[in-house]
Parts: sequence; C-alpha cells; structure tokens
Amino acid sequence: MNVLIVHAHPDANSLTSSLKDLAVNAFREEGHEVVVSDLYAMKWESAADYTDFDGITGPDFMHASGTAYATGRLSADIQAEQQKLRDADLVVLLFPLWWFTVPAILKGWIDRVFTYNFAYGADLGRYGNEGPLSGKRAMLATLTGGRAGHYTARGVNGPVDDLLFPLNHGVLHFTGFDVLPPFTAHSAVHLTTEQYDDIAARFRLRLATAFTTEPIPYRSETGGDYTGLTYPDGSELVPGRETPGTTGFALHTAGPKI
Amino acid sequence: MNVLIVHAHPDANSLTSSLKDLAVNAFREEGHEVVVSDLYAMKWESAADYTDFDGITGPDFMHASGTAYATGRLSADIQAEQQKLRDADLVVLLFPLWWFTVPAILKGWIDRVFTYNFAYGADLGRYGNEGPLSGKRAMLATLTGGRAGHYTARGVNGPVDDLLFPLNHGVLHFTGFDVLPPFTAHSAVHLTTEQYDDIAARFRLRLATAFTTEPIPYRSETGGDYTGLTYPDGSELVPGRETPGTTGFALHTAGPKI
Repeated sequence: MNVLIVHAHPDANSLTSSLKDLAVNAFREEGHEVVVSDLYAMKWESAADYTDFDGITGPDFMHASGTAYATGRLSADIQAEQQKLRDADLVVLLFPLWWFTVPAILKGWIDRVFTYNFAYGADLGRYGNEGPLSGKRAMLATLTGGRAGHYTARGVNGPVDDLLFPLNHGVLHFTGFDVLPPFTAHSAVHLTTEQYDDIAARFRLRLATAFTTEPIPYRSETGGDYTGLTYPDGSELVPGRETPGTTGFALHTAGPKI
Repeated sequence: MNVLIVHAHPDANSLTSSLKDLAVNAFREEGHEVVVSDLYAMKWESAADYTDFDGITGPDFMHASGTAYATGRLSADIQAEQQKLRDADLVVLLFPLWWFTVPAILKGWIDRVFTYNFAYGADLGRYGNEGPLSGKRAMLATLTGGRAGHYTARGVNGPVDDLLFPLNHGVLHFTGFDVLPPFTAHSAVHLTTEQYDDIAARFRLRLATAFTTEPIPYRSETGGDYTGLTYPDGSELVPGRETPGTTGFALHTAGPKI
C-alpha cells in the first residue's frame, strides 16, 4: 500500500521527528511504499493567497482556488501534494499539538492543498464515503507537552478527542477519508528512555494495524443521518438517531464513543 | 481604550476585510485607539522555528522560545506583536473560518507570538485571571461560507461554539483573557446588500458593547474548580460542579451555556 506521512516539527531531534523515522522504517519493513512530506524541511509556504492561482482572481477566494484547480493552474507545490494524496492509501499527519491543534505550517498544508473542486465542492459529496478522498484512510498522530489527566473527559483542557474533532471530522471525514482513532502521547518533553520506549511501542502497534483498525464511526451526510435532501438546505442530525442524552460532537459518532 | 485588531484575509475586497475597516472606524469614532495587524499585508511569517530565537537552541522548542523571550532575543516582528498585546485592552481576531478554525497565517501569529514565558509558563497562572494576559478582553469574529443550520447544536459541522472552543478556551482563556462570545456570520459568500447590512449592523452592535458584554463564564483553574493543588498534577473538574448531565466542553463553562 501507499503511505503518505505529513510531518510538521521544526526540530529534527524532536520526539515527533523520531516517530516520523520510526514510521517510515516500520511501513517499509512491511513492504509499503512511503512518501514523506516533511513540511519544515520543504520550507512549506503556509499562507494561502491568490499568488497560488496563476493570475486567477474570481469573485471569491474559495471559487478562485477551484478554478485554478480545475484548469491546472495551481502552484506546482500544491499540485505535487494533491498528487501524493491521490496516490495514498493511508495518510498520517504527525505533529506536536500546539494550542490544541496543528502547527501553522500544517494548517497551511491543509489550507493550500485541500482546494475547492479537489477536496470539496458543490458537486462533490462530503461527510461520508462519497467525498472526493473516499477509499483512503487517515490518522492523526500527535504529541503534547501536557499531562494526560488534563485531556480526559473532565480534564481542564477538554477531552482530546473533542479537541481533535475539527481535524478528524471537519477536515478528514468531511473530504471522505476513513478516519482512524488518533494516536496521542502526553508529557512528551524530556522523556526517560523507558517512557520513550513505551510511546514508540504504542505507535508501532498503531502503524501495524493501520489498515485493519476500525475507523471512527462518524455519521454520513449522504447516508440519511441528517435532515435535508440536499445539503445546502438544513443539515441537522435526524431526531432520535443519537444515544439519549448525547450532545455536542458526540452526536456525530454512531454507536459507542471511541 | 486600546484596541488591537488582528486581521487575516488575503483579499482586501472580502467581507472579512470590509468588517475590519468597519471596526477600525467604529472604534475610532468612539474615541478608542486602534492598532491593526493585517497579517497578509504584513506578509506575516507563519512557521514557528528556531530562526526566531537568535541562535538559542535549548533542549526543546518550547523552552527555547521562553529563553529567547526572557533574554530579549526573539525576532523583531514577534516582539512588536507582543508589545501590541501588552498595550491592548481589547483584542479582536477577525478571520474567515477555514476548515473550522483560523487560517494558517493567523495560527502562525498565535504560534510565534504566544511564546513560553510571555503567554504561558511554569511560573505563570493559566485558565483564569492569573494568566499573563489577564485584565484584557478578547473576541473572535469569524465569517463562514456554510449555512447557519450546519453549525447549530445538531448541525452536521458541529456547534460553532464547540468548534471555536480550542481558540476561545485553549488560547484566549488559557492565557488569561476575558473571552467575549464570538461574533459569527454564515453564508458569507456573494451577499446581497441587505444581507451585508444585517451582518454589519450586528457586528457594529457587538463592537459598541465590547467593553460591557459579559465574558463567557469559563471556569478557573486557580479558583478551585479543578482538582489538584498545583496544576502539574491532575487537573479535572471537581465532581458535582457541573449542571447534571453536562459533558464535553460544556463542563468548563459555569452557569447557562452561552
């Protein structure tokens, strides 16, 4: 299978970077093809703007990006990443959790690469297996400097699964990926060898099962879970579909919460 | 009062940009001092890396940023933004909602400006009025291209207040701001004049009341809402403190949910 690892840490000696090397080796040992987008090493440009569209302006930024995509006029670096995504069976986004989401350079990879008409669009399905990137798997792998207890159901930061919902549901499920439960490790600063070995072992297991792990059972917009025949109209969860008492992001996951 | 507007849209003719101009004029008419950080116009660098630290490396990126801050060796553009924050009584972050959060260039402003020892640190309080940026107010103002019905309590995108929680709670409340309820407007593409006037009028009202609006009643880590005497230990919401049946992000807001 083809694996794309998108890696976003400024220090080649960081834990995140060592897990990138670990992942490359682990996948290759199993016979997979691995491509790495090491965003800091690539000096990836983060700010999405009109300079990516070869002179196309258009009435608004979103549709201008879609026109540039459809006419093959996107910047070469964006086109290269889009091709990596087309080729991938599994995408791993590997990053330190900065301010409870991805570092800016990785947000810039999403903002610039996931253009209109490529990753979403009026004629493309979303939130389910009709999305343009359906048939592919994706997994977040993120390290935090905080204590695990701060990310629990009642932890002061909020539950880590909810913090990652805008990425897992809003980016990956939105565009059609089967989204695996995230890999997370906490207290990832100044680890002892034993602590590192434990994190590495847990990560290896997740990589080894990446093609068999059950994805998060997010609900499908086109599969009848939401109101409205066509999505530009209201699209709300059909009454009664949830486990009684469920609210917030949990509404959008079927069955037991992962 | 001193107002800092941080603005992040690549098109000077966008709705977001017009609301920036509206805000500047409205605040000045009321006699406030207004400073604008127009990130695209400034060609703000998004990717946080060691080049900001004047040669300081250190054992990890976070502490290196703190050392560079403490010794006055941060890049000049970062120091300038930190001074704007020190001077501000109110900070407005104004942006289009891209993939359910800020554009990369604004994430890069947060990543690079909110350094260790300036915005947070082992010796600084967090999640409450002991944070280093306490005494200041902050408000998100964001425009989306989606329908309002997709951002409701049961909407397919998830509730907009929950989508913004990592920014409101995880960045602004974390560092000590009093966080105002966000200003949001939906379907912000190809507006009629009437639709624009409605959004502008709602925004004007929020600006006029920005110094009197009640902040979101987030709970305080140092105020006894969480377990653990010192925060490096477990910090979870004290049992029974919440409205019965509350889960997820809502646990961290006292009283009726805003």
